[in-house]
Amino acid sequence: MTGLDALLDLAELPAAQIPEPTRDIARLSLMDWLLCGRAGVDEPVSSILRNMADSEGGTPQSALFGGGRAPARMAALVNGATSHALDYDDTHFAHVGHLSVGIYPAALAVAETENHDADAVCNAFAVGGEAAIRVGLALGRAHYERGFHQTATAGAFGATIAAGRLMGLSRDQMRAAIGLCATRATGLRCQFGTMGKPYNAGVAAAAGVECAHLAKAGMTAPDDGLFGGNGYLATHSDAPGDIDAVQGVWLLDDMKYKFHACCHGTHAMIEALTGHDINGIAALRLRTNPRWLTVCDLKTPRTGLEVKFSYAWLAGMTLRGDSTGSDKAYTDALARDPALAEFARCVEVTGDSTLTDMQAKGEIQMQDGSIHVFAHDLAAPIPVNEVMHSLRSKARALLGQSGDTICDKFSTLNTAKAVDLAALMEQRT
Amino acid sequence: MTGLDALLDLAELPAAQIPEPTRDIARLSLMDWLLCGRAGVDEPVSSILRNMADSEGGTPQSALFGGGRAPARMAALVNGATSHALDYDDTHFAHVGHLSVGIYPAALAVAETENHDADAVCNAFAVGGEAAIRVGLALGRAHYERGFHQTATAGAFGATIAAGRLMGLSRDQMRAAIGLCATRATGLRCQFGTMGKPYNAGVAAAAGVECAHLAKAGMTAPDDGLFGGNGYLATHSDAPGDIDAVQGVWLLDDMKYKFHACCHGTHAMIEALTGHDINGIAALRLRTNPRWLTVCDLKTPRTGLEVKFSYAWLAGMTLRGDSTGSDKAYTDALARDPALAEFARCVEVTGDSTLTDMQAKGEIQMQDGSIHVFAHDLAAPIPVNEVMHSLRSKARALLGQSGDTICDKFSTLNTAKAVDLAALMEQRT
Repeated sequence: MTGLDALLDLAELPAAQIPEPTRDIARLSLMDWLLCGRAGVDEPVSSILRNMADSEGGTPQSALFGGGRAPARMAALVNGATSHALDYDDTHFAHVGHLSVGIYPAALAVAETENHDADAVCNAFAVGGEAAIRVGLALGRAHYERGFHQTATAGAFGATIAAGRLMGLSRDQMRAAIGLCATRATGLRCQFGTMGKPYNAGVAAAAGVECAHLAKAGMTAPDDGLFGGNGYLATHSDAPGDIDAVQGVWLLDDMKYKFHACCHGTHAMIEALTGHDINGIAALRLRTNPRWLTVCDLKTPRTGLEVKFSYAWLAGMTLRGDSTGSDKAYTDALARDPALAEFARCVEVTGDSTLTDMQAKGEIQMQDGSIHVFAHDLAAPIPVNEVMHSLRSKARALLGQSGDTICDKFSTLNTAKAVDLAALMEQRT
Repeated sequence: MTGLDALLDLAELPAAQIPEPTRDIARLSLMDWLLCGRAGVDEPVSSILRNMADSEGGTPQSALFGGGRAPARMAALVNGATSHALDYDDTHFAHVGHLSVGIYPAALAVAETENHDADAVCNAFAVGGEAAIRVGLALGRAHYERGFHQTATAGAFGATIAAGRLMGLSRDQMRAAIGLCATRATGLRCQFGTMGKPYNAGVAAAAGVECAHLAKAGMTAPDDGLFGGNGYLATHSDAPGDIDAVQGVWLLDDMKYKFHACCHGTHAMIEALTGHDINGIAALRLRTNPRWLTVCDLKTPRTGLEVKFSYAWLAGMTLRGDSTGSDKAYTDALARDPALAEFARCVEVTGDSTLTDMQAKGEIQMQDGSIHVFAHDLAAPIPVNEVMHSLRSKARALLGQSGDTICDKFSTLNTAKAVDLAALMEQRT
């Protein structure tokens, strides 16, 4: 079976064949995505895109975070960027990126036009997300190292498959949709630290809606734009990975959620340092997977946004007991905090290729000469009910009491209609 | 001066500093683009995108080919694909692609919202087109060989600059627009022979409108998303070219126009064979630049569209005196023409790297053993009035008498408003 056939099989997999643990992940991700989107509505990137939606107007097909409606393609763009504005959404390390923010905006926008229920939306996310992970793996680390961002690139294929499934595409139409997506999907890491990063997620989601729509309308495309000659893998990766070995496994189950409102590459360090005290520290030596050095090791952040990508600043914040869980903590003033600037001078970060990108290790040297080692591995599984509990805390931290409304909804999620989910998106905090 | 600074200077160049021959080219390209767009309105890809525009609706900012209006971003998408649907639009060989179809749809759509005149539109195309050529050159042949298509990739930067100039972006806003375009611009050659190829042009044009709009609204982006670290060149070319040597020269002046409604890679052969007779030929041996072998050497075309990419079929058509100038000649029945299929068996095509991609050479061996050599070079300049004359013939071939309306308009082009140009787009043939 070719790589593309396997993805097409996945796209049309009957709901009953999606395992319950995978459906749990899809539901957790939907809840997390709704929280992040609701919390992101007042970010500048969200306002800019919402204003563009308002200026274009058009058929009010699908809900926008924060209220209002737009054509499905536009809703996917606005909601994708809005939900990634805080960079607080789910992450998948094998995929090398964020899944929900590229895929759920496409799925929700289409579910409204097609009048699907929440179960169908979650199933579309499950297969679209799984497909995106497989495309991300196939593109491999070489793709990321070259400067692309799987959230946007592999994510667009996931969005296309999720949207296409909800539109009821035939197998040949889905093949064409994927072929069109090959000429649509892009997104660069050089956008990190700018509004271009959340924009990437919205672009991927909108591309998914567009490619599925056009394929259904009869647009033709290459037979295999993804794995075929001169296709997406050939053009976008110098060392495509082999994904045959992972057939039959649901990689989606390894989804990780953020409980700190900063770059995921810093979370293992934050978990490892939690409970340590900043007083009396002479030096902090952190070891991390080398790939993070170009992502979240900003030595002197200039803005609140840049603080989210700064090991040194976040180490100081964690050790002195600052909350890292609320986005509101990351102010521009924090980047000028003299105590953090002073502490940052004792932080040394080195790459250690023996560590996975979910691990952090290191040592704290006290002024009295004693040494404390620290370590954390984000890969350790967390039971669903614990994730749910943590997401409820995240909901309250981000949205106050109205966060509970979203969480409560999840007890009756299976019977919810897309329009009910849309109502959750539209509420303002 | 950095590469980006040079492009920013170009983007804001005062109109008076654009040389008259370059402005002539911009005007010829506008006329050619209008002809191609008008002639493309009934193609399936055009209908599919127009239907999407109709289903989304929205603010009627900008004209669509064939009538109706849509938001500027959508108009750029529809008009870009529509004008490239026949693959009959202008080509620039240094850029490695088509310029008008990515850039004029963006410029026109924005010119309407900003109430510019035709001169401003042509000037925006001149600087946007020149910028696209320079980006295309910088990406180099390696980019094309990797599987990307400069029409779409470099074209998106040209569209961004043209749209941004007409929106009156500041230098910093233009820098951001280019930075955003870096995470937007893509398009693959594997779409050739499918509707994905004209779609690529529309996608580039729409990206230009969107990136310029978002930058003006304050969206942030990397300082140099094009030439900078992990930027567009680094991610999209294995051997970026040096463009410092071409500063101070207007490369746009080398624009070529198509007078045969098929792939530009076949035109030198068609010109060279015109006047020869098909009778008595035993063998035809064509030499062409090797890059064309993967583009337009389809041995057994299955559709009218594929005939446009078939040396063998086109040689037979030319030699027996078929018209190659009207798109209507390329029917699916032509792909099944037994005489052409028979003649194709005597056509041999080989790559010859001593030839430029605008040259064709070869020999015809007659059944009596005699040999006739043939050759043509499309690079030979053609005076403006001769191009104009040929475009008028093209207009009549494509659009009948109503083609004259467009040509006549060009005597008073400088005083035309964008809305007058829009009126030319909206007429149906």
